[in-house]
Amino acid sequence: MTTYTATVTVRLKRGVLDPEAETTKRALERLGFELEALRSADRFEVDLEADSASAAADRADEMAERLLANPTIHDYDVEVDDSE
Amino acid sequence: MTTYTATVTVRLKRGVLDPEAETTKRALERLGFELEALRSADRFEVDLEADSASAAADRADEMAERLLANPTIHDYDVEVDDSE
Repeated sequence: MTTYTATVTVRLKRGVLDPEAETTKRALERLGFELEALRSADRFEVDLEADSASAAADRADEMAERLLANPTIHDYDVEVDDSE
Repeated sequence: MTTYTATVTVRLKRGVLDPEAETTKRALERLGFELEALRSADRFEVDLEADSASAAADRADEMAERLLANPTIHDYDVEVDDSE
């Protein structure tokens, strides 16, 4: 068993309103920054033991399906690195 | 001017308590998942016009310094991609 780090990035689907990102964008503009758009996402870094990187990715995918993401409003992706 | 997407990842410094991550970890364990650790981070994807990728990275870095991250408790990193 090796320890892998799976990174799950959860973002809102296109078309879902993101008031937090809107507020952040406006705050940056008030500070004088020019930007076209800003999107926010949540990132979870999960350390887990698994037999292979693909087993770790499958497990992280199931975590996203069952808890980390809400499929009605979120898309997610999973990346896996060896952590040691 | 080209449009670049700068991704700013803001995470808590080591040693800073992260009750949200603790709660998420325990919720996953209650669902039967085994995991060693879980860290959460915020990710901001900023589309901006700049003369070069390094100019875009500098601007995103300044956004992180001034608004997106709190230097007392956060570390951040910036990555830049061409968005078109």
